[in-house]
Amino acid sequence: MNYHRVDYAQLREFCIHVFEGYGFDSAQSAQITDVLLDADLSGIESHGIQRLIRYHHEITEGLVKLDAKPEVVFETPLSAVIEGNDAMGQILGMQAMQMAIDKAKASGFGMVTVRNSNHYGIAGFYARMAAEQGLIGMSMTNTEAIMVPTFGRQAMLGTNPIAFAMPTDGAPYLFDAATTVVPRGKLEVYVKRGSGLPLGWALDENGQDSADPDRVLGNIIHKTGGGILPLGGSGELTSGYKGYGFAMLCEIATAILSGGTTSNYIYKTPGRANIAHCFIAMDQGMFGDKAELEASLSRFLQEIRESDKAAGQQRIYIHGEKEAEAHVAVKRDGVLLNDKTYAEMEMIGQYTGAGDYLPKYLDA
Amino acid sequence: MNYHRVDYAQLREFCIHVFEGYGFDSAQSAQITDVLLDADLSGIESHGIQRLIRYHHEITEGLVKLDAKPEVVFETPLSAVIEGNDAMGQILGMQAMQMAIDKAKASGFGMVTVRNSNHYGIAGFYARMAAEQGLIGMSMTNTEAIMVPTFGRQAMLGTNPIAFAMPTDGAPYLFDAATTVVPRGKLEVYVKRGSGLPLGWALDENGQDSADPDRVLGNIIHKTGGGILPLGGSGELTSGYKGYGFAMLCEIATAILSGGTTSNYIYKTPGRANIAHCFIAMDQGMFGDKAELEASLSRFLQEIRESDKAAGQQRIYIHGEKEAEAHVAVKRDGVLLNDKTYAEMEMIGQYTGAGDYLPKYLDA
Repeated sequence: MNYHRVDYAQLREFCIHVFEGYGFDSAQSAQITDVLLDADLSGIESHGIQRLIRYHHEITEGLVKLDAKPEVVFETPLSAVIEGNDAMGQILGMQAMQMAIDKAKASGFGMVTVRNSNHYGIAGFYARMAAEQGLIGMSMTNTEAIMVPTFGRQAMLGTNPIAFAMPTDGAPYLFDAATTVVPRGKLEVYVKRGSGLPLGWALDENGQDSADPDRVLGNIIHKTGGGILPLGGSGELTSGYKGYGFAMLCEIATAILSGGTTSNYIYKTPGRANIAHCFIAMDQGMFGDKAELEASLSRFLQEIRESDKAAGQQRIYIHGEKEAEAHVAVKRDGVLLNDKTYAEMEMIGQYTGAGDYLPKYLDA
Repeated sequence: MNYHRVDYAQLREFCIHVFEGYGFDSAQSAQITDVLLDADLSGIESHGIQRLIRYHHEITEGLVKLDAKPEVVFETPLSAVIEGNDAMGQILGMQAMQMAIDKAKASGFGMVTVRNSNHYGIAGFYARMAAEQGLIGMSMTNTEAIMVPTFGRQAMLGTNPIAFAMPTDGAPYLFDAATTVVPRGKLEVYVKRGSGLPLGWALDENGQDSADPDRVLGNIIHKTGGGILPLGGSGELTSGYKGYGFAMLCEIATAILSGGTTSNYIYKTPGRANIAHCFIAMDQGMFGDKAELEASLSRFLQEIRESDKAAGQQRIYIHGEKEAEAHVAVKRDGVLLNDKTYAEMEMIGQYTGAGDYLPKYLDA
C-alpha cells in the first residue's frame, strides 16, 4: 500500500460533511469527527480515518440509529446509567463523560455507565476530556469478544481497553491500553506482511499458541475458536491471567454496572451492537492541593524520563507522550492515509454528498 | 526444604501472641495476624507466615513504630488522606479500608489514601473486606522499586499490586495481581532450583533480557541495575508498556494522591519504609438493583467457566476461585510450612515470649 498525506483541517472538514450527509446535526458531526480523528492525530492509524468505512457500514446498515434518543435510566448525585438505544458511540461517549465530569465538579466523583451503544473510538479521548477540565479521568469499553480466557479456547472477552488521565504541569499523563496483548489490527498487519506472529499473541482453534496469522484471523472471522491472548500471554508462566483480570474489571465497569451486555453477546443480536462503556471523573482536590499533587506527579514523571536507559535505548517514554508529540507533527505535516482508505473516502464522499470536500494529497 | 503442616487455629493463636509480645494490643494483634495468615489460607505462601521474619526485623529495628498515632490530614465526605506515621501496614490498611467502606455506605463512594506506612500484606484482603460488606472494593499499594520501565535499566516502580472485588451470588469475584510479570519471590524460587528464568521475566544490569536468576537477584539486592519486567515483558513486542502503565496508575492512586512517596524512594530514608496505599469502596447500588447486578455478574462468570477449554485443560478459573477453595482446604488440612520458616517461628516465639504457643507439626 502507498501512503500519502492530507491536510488535517481539510480532512476534518470532509468528515464533518460526511456525518452531516448521513443525517447527524452539525454539533454531532463535529463530535464524531473529533473523536475519530484524535486517533490519527495521536498516530494511531488503526482507530482513525481508516475506520470510516466501518462506521459507514454500521450507519447505513442501521446498527447505528441516527434518530436514537438516549435515556438516563438511573441516577444519583455521583452516578448515572444511560440506555444508549443504539446511538452513535462517540455521541453517547462525549455526553456521558461530560455528565461524569459535571458530577465530579459538583461532588468530587462521577461515574456514568452506558449500555446498548456502538463502537466509541479511542478510550483515551474521554479520559483526556476530564484531564483537560482539570480532573482525573478514566474510560473503558467492552468490545466484540476476541480475548480467550486463560486455559480456554473460546473468545469470551473483548480487547477491553482501559484509559486513565491526570493533569500534570505539562500535557496530561494519559494511559490507554487494550487488555489483550495486541489489537486485532496487528494480526491483519502480519497477514499482509506474510510473516509469522510473535509467540504469546494468539491462540489457534484448539487453544494452543499459534504463529500463523492467517489461521488465527480466519478463526476469528468465522468464529471457529481461538483468538487473541490477554496481556501476559498464554497459560500462567508470564501471567496471562492478569490481562484476563484487567479485562474482567472492564466488563464489570461497563456491561455489569450498566445492566448491559458482556462482550460475548456483542454483535450477536441482528441489527444491534450492544456495546457498553464506563466513564469516571474524579477531582484530585479531594486529596489535597491540586497544584501540589500535579507538581508531585510531574516530578515523578521527570525522574522516570531521566532514569538509566537500557543499552541501545535513548529514551524512556511516559504514557501519552508519543501521542502528544504526534498531535503537533500531524497538524503540521498532515495525516498519513493509505490508498485503500482514500478510495473508501471517495466512495463515502459520493454516498454522503461530501465529495466536494475530499482533501487532496499534499504530496501529489 | 521439607514441608510440614500445622493446624490453622493453633498457628493463628501463636501469631496473635507473637504480636502481643512485640507490644501491640489484642485487637491489633488479631488484625495483623488475620491479614498475614489470609495469604496462607489463600495458598499464597510468599505473602504468609514465611514473612513473619520480615515483620520481626521491621518491628525490632524500628521501621514499624508500635506507638504510632496515624492522623487524618485531609478529609471530604468521599475521601480522606491518612498520615501513617510509620504504623504497622495492616493496622493502617484495615482502618483506612473501613473508612472507605463507611463513606461508600453513606454516600455511594469512598476513597482513602495512606502515606508513610509499612508493608500491608496482600492487597486482595482489603478489596474483599468491601465485598464482604456488600460493596465493590479496590486496593493498591506501592512497594520498593523493582520494576524497570520500558526501555530502562533502573528499577523505578514497585510490584504495585492492584486488587478488585465485587460480590456475586457465591464467593466474591476477587482479582489481585502485581503489575510486574512475577513477584521477587519467584526469582528466589528459581535461584533455589538452580534453573534458568523464563524469557520475559527480568532484565540484567544493562537492561537486556536475562535468564540468570542469580545475576538478576544479586543486582536487585545490591541495587546495581536491572530488575523485574512489567506485565507484558520487555520492549514493546508483547506490550510491556501496558504493565508499566498499570503500575503508574497504582503510583498515582497511592503515592501521588496521598502526598506520599513513590516507589523509587521506598526504604531509602533510614528507619522508614515510606510505603503508600489506596483503598476504594463503591456501592454498586448507584447503578441499579444490587441483587440484579450481582446475578448478572454471576451469570457471566458461569458462562466463562462453561466456555470451551484449551486442549489438555479441564478448567477455566475465575479470579479468586483458587484462593477461596484453598481457604477451605487449609482450614481442614492445616498450613504448609517449610523447615526454615518453622525455625524462624521458634526464634520469634522465644523473643516475644510466645514460644509456648508454637504449633506442633500435624504430621510429625
